[in-house]
Amino acid sequence: MTKERLYLFDTTLRDGAQTQGVDFSVEDKRLIAKLLDKLGVDYVEGGYPGANPTDTNFFAEDPGLKHAVFTSFGMTKRAGRSADNDPGLAAIFESAAKACCFVAKSWDFHVDVALGITKEENIETIADTVRATVERGREAMIDAEHFFDGYKANPEFAMACLKAAIDNGARWAVLCDTNGGTLPHEITRIVSEVVKEIPGERLGIHCHNDTENAVANTLAAVNAGVRQIQGTLNGLGERCGNANMVSLIPTLLLKPEFADRFEIGVSLDQLKEITHVSRTLDELLNRAPDRYAPYVGESAFASKAGIHVSALLKDPATYEHVPPESVGNKRRVLISDQSGRSNVLAQLEAAGIDVDAKDPRVQQLLDEVKEREYLGYSYDGAEASFELLARRALGEVPDYFTVDSFRVLVERRYNAVGKLVTVSEATVKVRVEGQKLISVGEGNGPINALDEALRKDLGRYQSYIDEMRLVDFKVRILTGGTEAVTRVLIETADKSGERWFTVGVSPNIVDASFQALLDSIIYKLMRENAPAPETKRKPTLKAPASS
Amino acid sequence: MTKERLYLFDTTLRDGAQTQGVDFSVEDKRLIAKLLDKLGVDYVEGGYPGANPTDTNFFAEDPGLKHAVFTSFGMTKRAGRSADNDPGLAAIFESAAKACCFVAKSWDFHVDVALGITKEENIETIADTVRATVERGREAMIDAEHFFDGYKANPEFAMACLKAAIDNGARWAVLCDTNGGTLPHEITRIVSEVVKEIPGERLGIHCHNDTENAVANTLAAVNAGVRQIQGTLNGLGERCGNANMVSLIPTLLLKPEFADRFEIGVSLDQLKEITHVSRTLDELLNRAPDRYAPYVGESAFASKAGIHVSALLKDPATYEHVPPESVGNKRRVLISDQSGRSNVLAQLEAAGIDVDAKDPRVQQLLDEVKEREYLGYSYDGAEASFELLARRALGEVPDYFTVDSFRVLVERRYNAVGKLVTVSEATVKVRVEGQKLISVGEGNGPINALDEALRKDLGRYQSYIDEMRLVDFKVRILTGGTEAVTRVLIETADKSGERWFTVGVSPNIVDASFQALLDSIIYKLMRENAPAPETKRKPTLKAPASS
Repeated sequence: MTKERLYLFDTTLRDGAQTQGVDFSVEDKRLIAKLLDKLGVDYVEGGYPGANPTDTNFFAEDPGLKHAVFTSFGMTKRAGRSADNDPGLAAIFESAAKACCFVAKSWDFHVDVALGITKEENIETIADTVRATVERGREAMIDAEHFFDGYKANPEFAMACLKAAIDNGARWAVLCDTNGGTLPHEITRIVSEVVKEIPGERLGIHCHNDTENAVANTLAAVNAGVRQIQGTLNGLGERCGNANMVSLIPTLLLKPEFADRFEIGVSLDQLKEITHVSRTLDELLNRAPDRYAPYVGESAFASKAGIHVSALLKDPATYEHVPPESVGNKRRVLISDQSGRSNVLAQLEAAGIDVDAKDPRVQQLLDEVKEREYLGYSYDGAEASFELLARRALGEVPDYFTVDSFRVLVERRYNAVGKLVTVSEATVKVRVEGQKLISVGEGNGPINALDEALRKDLGRYQSYIDEMRLVDFKVRILTGGTEAVTRVLIETADKSGERWFTVGVSPNIVDASFQALLDSIIYKLMRENAPAPETKRKPTLKAPASS
Repeated sequence: MTKERLYLFDTTLRDGAQTQGVDFSVEDKRLIAKLLDKLGVDYVEGGYPGANPTDTNFFAEDPGLKHAVFTSFGMTKRAGRSADNDPGLAAIFESAAKACCFVAKSWDFHVDVALGITKEENIETIADTVRATVERGREAMIDAEHFFDGYKANPEFAMACLKAAIDNGARWAVLCDTNGGTLPHEITRIVSEVVKEIPGERLGIHCHNDTENAVANTLAAVNAGVRQIQGTLNGLGERCGNANMVSLIPTLLLKPEFADRFEIGVSLDQLKEITHVSRTLDELLNRAPDRYAPYVGESAFASKAGIHVSALLKDPATYEHVPPESVGNKRRVLISDQSGRSNVLAQLEAAGIDVDAKDPRVQQLLDEVKEREYLGYSYDGAEASFELLARRALGEVPDYFTVDSFRVLVERRYNAVGKLVTVSEATVKVRVEGQKLISVGEGNGPINALDEALRKDLGRYQSYIDEMRLVDFKVRILTGGTEAVTRVLIETADKSGERWFTVGVSPNIVDASFQALLDSIIYKLMRENAPAPETKRKPTLKAPASS
């Protein structure tokens, strides 16, 4: 049986940008667009060129997507003005967008109350906008805003709006549940009626999660005939969010009811990246990932109930609806120290550290990891720090150098020409094989200055770290209030392109950063097999008391 | 038309306790049981007496529920042993539970792999357990574990398990989607078949959220005939959670498709408490409430898109699927990059700032907001900084004082007793009405020290800010790399309990924090109507160049 093609239209960068607390920079947008392209979605809606500087800049050049169609959002032309003469449309047509999705009213109440124009004028704006888009060689589509509310109020008018788009060459007319209040059985009923007049191959669905049914509504619409799905990564979006692509894609690929009937642009191999994609987006937004998220959450394949765990160990299919590996996630059994132990052993193996499971140092390491995690450390995203910790427990890491002290100064003052400036400067005192070294660094902030000073002169080890550079720096405050503990995650790279992640925790952000910076340097020396110093030094990595 | 009764069975205290990271004390359980009773649910499943000390203690006495039936969870008796002689059942029958819900296998694969008994033995354990419960005057019901997987594999056996319960006097047989992998259309199909043999008035539904369809699956089961709904507050539960009662209850009461056909134990008045109930549970668990939660989330009725806001102001029904007051929630209009003029006007109104929409300063303010958001500012969660910006644009904020310079020092060194310590110290130079003031502060980190110094001596303004304190401090790095821009969001409170949020952005984290700290002080002075200084000063709030 030939499978039908379902198209995935991602609007993380447009409707997702409406999420309270979410602001994408141009750079964020470029990164996410590439991530989506690699995942295999068909359309990346990047924003609304002309509406704000971020989107205008993002659309100024083609982001170089390999599979996905770079798509802009926009409003249909204003009534009483020709599409060729509309400044909003002009901004879109000047952009690098290959497809344009226009929001169009399809609820008579809205046309009347919000736009204050006649129904005929509304239909004409749709027709004219779509025509102008197609004439310019772009793929045109409309988001029929409030379609379901509109259909309930005045089905003839709602249908006429869709037809104005389709009849004038729109590739898609998308049925939007803009207020998010429509329930699945209503979606089924209304879409079933719509497909009698417009083929499902020209229809899309766009749902919001205001009743927690966005995913179900989307699936109901597909079952009733639509062939384009709109959604966002992690269900970002205005109010309660949009339909969550990260839940929809695994369902479409792994559940036979859909997988047997449809083909999508994402392969089973690409599906294994979806947990990573979901968490990368959260990292970028500095949000804690939802640990209970379907398919990709840290707890999605975690079992706590004793009765479940014993059955699960006999056969995973007893308590897992899909294999965790299929979405790049992991099984977690939350029972005992025993499972903690096998966890640590698995991590050691992943780091290429060969150690006997019965070695008492494994238990010591486990105890230390538990204590540190209690303090706020997290080794999930900081494999280099974990490897250092493990190799230290096994006595494999030399104390290459000792940091005796550091000092960081941040000063805001008027400079010689009367301009208000903020200067950051750091001094670091280091001992390498008895030799005292003092270095100073400047930076655009205290951490940058500290990094500069620390990497300036490490004596005989300097050549090993010359080509290291700080790539990213992330801060998370773990508890509220002034006594908050700060966790800093640092990403470092060298010339070969290798990247590694280290972590530091302290009530003092400078201290936490220092720990992570130090780990990043020592990790590099270890990887390069830098020789141990001739005289032994005390380790310097204990978190100091703060005062 | 007479409405049919739908029963709500809450399992927050039993299945919800399986949530990773959730541990209820006996006291927690008492509090939540009362909260649920007041909300109007019909059954409160409190736990599994005999399985652990918390649950045994909780079930030792009647929690005094007024409406809800106090219900225990338990396992059916062991095969090969009489129900009268089963220690697990004995603990349940000794408890204060008025109803008992027994988990029973209904998937032949599980009976075989997990229990290792015959199908006939399984059916006998169900029948005997239910009989023993009814004999003791308790209401009996079963959770038919893995019912949907079981029905797909062997419908006769799955049905025989349900009938063994119903035929022996169980009030309810509950169809459980234990692994959470069943999709809505499958629920519809299977429940429609089940109700041909067992009346829907004796059937319940218990769904998990592993495909993000728990709410939809529950509604599908009700539409297909079941009359008991199981779920948890805030969708707590193992893995991805159970069906979310907090989403289901408003839908059942506010959406005509359900409200016209069904009656539940929760009234429209009680519904107004549901936002409070949801947040109280999070408070108890020390979890941040999900701001994007349907109906009850802080963002559930928040609008950011300019085109939405202007229509919303004309008529809320244009963009709200239900009135926020109906669930005890509030409408919110957000400021952002996307925002148009009407957004800014709404925010000005919310801040109590009276200004003519045609005032050219409104456009200036909008331009400034957009420019600042491009630089990385976000006024979404920083209403106090927005209000300051707006009132400054209107010339309403005096320059109370000037910060001439500040200096922050972070030093790690060995102290007098040879202990490694990190010391943070800040010095701030301020001018108030020509008077030069210099203050120094210490803290557990640079920001804390700066905050201490800045609030130490503001001359004549000191009394206004004496009772301010920093409550929370959030850091977000906006672009990767060392040249990253840092956004700091600060929450401040005073003695009256008022809280306000301010924002600062800079490549330098100390600078960004300084801006937010300064805003928080000036906001407080403004709110307190502190008198303007007698001599005018230049504004001090421009972000300085960094070097």
